[in-house]
Amino acid sequence: MSTTIQDIIDSMIEAVPGAPRVDSVDTVKCGDPAQPVTGIVTTFTATMDVLRQAVQLGANLIITHEPTFYDHRDHTDWLGDDPVYQRKRDFLEQNQLAIWRYHDYWHMQRPDGIITGLLRQLGWEQYYQPDQRVLAIIPEMTLETLVAHLKEKLAMPTVRIVGNPQQSCQRLGLMVGAAGGTRQIEVFQKLDVDVLLCGETIEWQTCEYVRDANALGYNKALVILGHAKSEEDGMRYLADWLRSRVPATIPITYIAVGNPTLAI
Amino acid sequence: MSTTIQDIIDSMIEAVPGAPRVDSVDTVKCGDPAQPVTGIVTTFTATMDVLRQAVQLGANLIITHEPTFYDHRDHTDWLGDDPVYQRKRDFLEQNQLAIWRYHDYWHMQRPDGIITGLLRQLGWEQYYQPDQRVLAIIPEMTLETLVAHLKEKLAMPTVRIVGNPQQSCQRLGLMVGAAGGTRQIEVFQKLDVDVLLCGETIEWQTCEYVRDANALGYNKALVILGHAKSEEDGMRYLADWLRSRVPATIPITYIAVGNPTLAI
Repeated sequence: MSTTIQDIIDSMIEAVPGAPRVDSVDTVKCGDPAQPVTGIVTTFTATMDVLRQAVQLGANLIITHEPTFYDHRDHTDWLGDDPVYQRKRDFLEQNQLAIWRYHDYWHMQRPDGIITGLLRQLGWEQYYQPDQRVLAIIPEMTLETLVAHLKEKLAMPTVRIVGNPQQSCQRLGLMVGAAGGTRQIEVFQKLDVDVLLCGETIEWQTCEYVRDANALGYNKALVILGHAKSEEDGMRYLADWLRSRVPATIPITYIAVGNPTLAI
Repeated sequence: MSTTIQDIIDSMIEAVPGAPRVDSVDTVKCGDPAQPVTGIVTTFTATMDVLRQAVQLGANLIITHEPTFYDHRDHTDWLGDDPVYQRKRDFLEQNQLAIWRYHDYWHMQRPDGIITGLLRQLGWEQYYQPDQRVLAIIPEMTLETLVAHLKEKLAMPTVRIVGNPQQSCQRLGLMVGAAGGTRQIEVFQKLDVDVLLCGETIEWQTCEYVRDANALGYNKALVILGHAKSEEDGMRYLADWLRSRVPATIPITYIAVGNPTLAI
């Protein structure tokens, strides 16, 4: 009997401590999970470009970390007859693609699958402090050196910072994704980090807190990677993690999307 | 009788159509409004640096657009004994500074005081479409030319974009501040803008919508100025607007803060 999309989903939920989760965003967004799976794509977000690549690869299951339809729960009523939404929906149906979100469950893994993927990419797994969940203690270096390492390992042309490039960094907070300003500030308070790495930030909260901290002489910095670059190596790692859990005849491909923004 | 801080506040609320507003964030954040006003500072956000400059100027009323304590309503219980918060609070008390927020009321002006200030700075007031509130129709130009104009007029070293620098721009959406992803996408839908100018964005919503729109061949772009740069010229304009409404003996100074982030 061939493996179905639902078989893959079930096995990936079973592997999570504490699963199944009530009220999760990790639902099937489109497509028929009873189909035999022809190939799997993992990605940060199922952009039009990812969908086209999946079709070229002959894969019919896309496992995405973030929403497909620009809404946390992928509600679509508000989009109405929006042509971007309608044409994306049409493309999905014409190509019988299934999209499943693996967000909550991948973060529920211990250690968090997304943070693990980022630290692997940085070559810094050994510095992770699993008891604190969002903390790494790295060899002491300046913020400038830290940023150079991030840019090289994550292939980023620019990174946004708040803080003094010459400050020292050792206690590194890991708030990947878009955790919100209050939670980001709480990491400075509770874990006394020198520098917080984040995906998206809230400028009038976190950035102003760090700007004030610097004006008062504290050794505090924020490094803003962008949401995609902070999390997508976690979906690269998911492709590796899946390889030993899925029959070898089913191809698994990670597709990078990068940040949507360009600094010019 | 000398003019008090409360007199200034009252006259600025009276000038707003529809005021007073119920449940506004435009409250006195610290200081005694019964004090005679010695000088007024207007600014995007009352950073530590702004507070120090106000003291040097001898001004005791700071009119800020955004919060002082990293929270929309300036609730401070969650900050506890945070040293950044405590030292900022101490500085305010020692120097008997009053902070009043002028956010909701300045946006309630017709036209919106913040949008007016931005358009004045850009030299584009004549292109504003007041009926649509967040729309300007500018002479047709490429996104690249638009960005060059923004960088020059707003003195910005870099701007973040999503889209093709060669696309044409004429219908310009004006979503200053941090309006949220859903509201930003709705401006593309309802006003059919070619390009949306914003302060902060939600990357996994607005940026991914624009990335998909581009992949589908639509002429849609997003320009991200940062929250401060998108709104602070509105507080520069407020200083001009106030000049004819406040006794000439009271100095009024606009203090620019710029974006807290630096792209490196």
